[in-house]
Amino acid sequence: MGMTMTQKILAAHAGLERVEAGQLIEADLDLVLGNDITSPVAIKEMEKMKVDGVFDKDKIALVPDHFVPNKDIKSAEHCKCVREFAYRNQITNYFEVGEMGIEHALLPEKGLVVAGDVVIGADSHTCTYGALGAFSTGVGSTDMAAGMATGKAWFKVPGAIRFNLTGKLSQWVSGKDVILHIIGMIGVDGALYKSMEFVGDGIASLTMDDRFTIANMAIEAGGKNGIFPVDDQALLYMKEHSMKTPVVYEADEDAVYDEEYTIDLGALRPTIAFPHLPENTKTIDEITEDVKIDQVVIGSCTNGRIGDLRCAAEVLKGRHVASGMRCIIIPATQAIYLQAMEEGLLKIFIEAGAVVSTPTCGPCLGGYMGILAAGERCVSTTNRNFVGRMGHVDSEVYLASPAVAAASAVTGKISCPCQL
Amino acid sequence: MGMTMTQKILAAHAGLERVEAGQLIEADLDLVLGNDITSPVAIKEMEKMKVDGVFDKDKIALVPDHFVPNKDIKSAEHCKCVREFAYRNQITNYFEVGEMGIEHALLPEKGLVVAGDVVIGADSHTCTYGALGAFSTGVGSTDMAAGMATGKAWFKVPGAIRFNLTGKLSQWVSGKDVILHIIGMIGVDGALYKSMEFVGDGIASLTMDDRFTIANMAIEAGGKNGIFPVDDQALLYMKEHSMKTPVVYEADEDAVYDEEYTIDLGALRPTIAFPHLPENTKTIDEITEDVKIDQVVIGSCTNGRIGDLRCAAEVLKGRHVASGMRCIIIPATQAIYLQAMEEGLLKIFIEAGAVVSTPTCGPCLGGYMGILAAGERCVSTTNRNFVGRMGHVDSEVYLASPAVAAASAVTGKISCPCQL
Repeated sequence: MGMTMTQKILAAHAGLERVEAGQLIEADLDLVLGNDITSPVAIKEMEKMKVDGVFDKDKIALVPDHFVPNKDIKSAEHCKCVREFAYRNQITNYFEVGEMGIEHALLPEKGLVVAGDVVIGADSHTCTYGALGAFSTGVGSTDMAAGMATGKAWFKVPGAIRFNLTGKLSQWVSGKDVILHIIGMIGVDGALYKSMEFVGDGIASLTMDDRFTIANMAIEAGGKNGIFPVDDQALLYMKEHSMKTPVVYEADEDAVYDEEYTIDLGALRPTIAFPHLPENTKTIDEITEDVKIDQVVIGSCTNGRIGDLRCAAEVLKGRHVASGMRCIIIPATQAIYLQAMEEGLLKIFIEAGAVVSTPTCGPCLGGYMGILAAGERCVSTTNRNFVGRMGHVDSEVYLASPAVAAASAVTGKISCPCQL
Repeated sequence: MGMTMTQKILAAHAGLERVEAGQLIEADLDLVLGNDITSPVAIKEMEKMKVDGVFDKDKIALVPDHFVPNKDIKSAEHCKCVREFAYRNQITNYFEVGEMGIEHALLPEKGLVVAGDVVIGADSHTCTYGALGAFSTGVGSTDMAAGMATGKAWFKVPGAIRFNLTGKLSQWVSGKDVILHIIGMIGVDGALYKSMEFVGDGIASLTMDDRFTIANMAIEAGGKNGIFPVDDQALLYMKEHSMKTPVVYEADEDAVYDEEYTIDLGALRPTIAFPHLPENTKTIDEITEDVKIDQVVIGSCTNGRIGDLRCAAEVLKGRHVASGMRCIIIPATQAIYLQAMEEGLLKIFIEAGAVVSTPTCGPCLGGYMGILAAGERCVSTTNRNFVGRMGHVDSEVYLASPAVAAASAVTGKISCPCQL
């Protein structure tokens, strides 16, 4: 009985010939990630463990991104704790304000993750790096602490669901619509503790940004991770961004999957997750009544990459956001910000009446930079629309692609660019 | 006995031939200003007064700028209150996120204030518009409420101090150094309830941005207002920005001043206000020991204008901020942001390792976007360095010009560009 791609990576990192679903293993880690919310907790855990020092100063990434530039005194103290830890331990990959970006956009961009890696991060969307053919998953701060100290983590080897992607996305349909469609289909616990393994000839037509978005939201279906095969496009991306050598794993032909789905990408439509769960999806065609909105957010680890901004700019160019609309656009990293500026995208945004923020997770988690009052509605390219996620418990978040978000900013109600 | 420039404006707006210092008058208002902190209080006061409606929907400016894009649920609710009031009363000059900027940079830019106007604003730095030859001053939210309802406000006519500016500023010395020098000289209560009247042949060489900065900080010397004569440069600025007709008032030759100072602009040096009062000034030459810093903020109603950003860019071009430094640059309005982008300034900032924020008052008042932890030090182009102003009570703020702030970001300690 063969292994899935995820199982092969885990077996190799556990020094085992083979592993199977349900097996408990201890694996070597290629990278341990933390942010300004989770790292201070992990650092305090290390103090409790009386651990002095880290397993490898080059294999830890500390990215303050949730509340920076510091939102308040508490976040300032948290960032100070992380900064002092980073300097004390000479952490190579500590990213200060000005160098930083949203962790899951930053790490691939900086080449810190490549195919075949095992990565844990004290942030649920660490599963993003599956787009590169790495095994990566979110953990708690205690596991992060143990990982920083020992370079190892235990895992229960996940079973898998295979998603066979065929065909090609049509205009204004993107990776976000793919993953929202899947979550709508299988539910927010549809892939509980399983690896979501994407395969099929449809993948070639997906951009890396599409794949990052899809892998990023594996956790929203309860998945342990999401993972893509490593094709030429992925190898080229890693070659351009990383000094590390990718190690390519392929699933065995007789690998076991608990379930299999085939999805015709060409049949997908712009998809929106209604409050208050990512599984409450409707296609744009299924929305029959106007859903008026107050705010649009385009950004986050899910959809703040250059491809996302290009798409939003294509929609907003020569148009203006609706009267009374707040449209907040957040490039995910400094490099993306700079590139978007050079390509003229930021100018399009400002001229359209949007505002452009310095990179931050900010509004996605109700942090800052666009919090909602009671009764307000936001179309957001972020990843969660739980009750109160972006502010007041009586506010609403509608998850969508950058294309739908930008079009909705123009009309003031949930819209597709095809409706403009 | 003649009248000062301020007294003449007040007399005209009170329908009186003449007024004298100490006299209580009621004056007609040309503009009433509020922001997202003060307007909700004023709106609630109007409800208590059972006032329905405003005196003139074109003569009220509502500018949410302190905590927008909304920092948290409370600020979101405040902004919602202001937005609903603005729509209900069809306020012409309500500025939504995307149209907005920091109030005292925005109003002159939008042409809402011109020479000869009487303006009250529920924000202490409303005195900024004195640069245009207007009488403008900060009031409490209750006065703002009465002003919105009646179009009138009472004033005790202020006495005056005359500042005779001669000569010309040398390189890397700007309006900020002028006003810090003055506050250092007369103290934070040196102009208590007086108008600070700037005169002299040195004014011609001051840019409008210099003058806005100087008038802006009149309140930091306790002044009721600061005011400049209306010269060709000021008239040109108003012609370019406003549809309103400036009314030029000049002080009588025999106007009475409580005190007079002559300041040779050419003798001024880059000046820094040390914690915890704007009067604790030292020139760059008087700083003999290294003052290491953690953060630099360039922005605010005091120094977030295009001239300020150009100066900062001149210093940062081809350089990089010091290791561990957070350098936060905040264009004061969307128009300034766009212009700075078109001129390549934002690119210089990002490449230097600074971050660029959407317009906001944010860090100046300890709001968000760069709050300090205990023990941290910031060089800031803002206007107040009181205990805890930018965060923790054990943090420190050093007030300086954009030139000094940018140079300090590069070296990691308080520095002048001449020292780079």
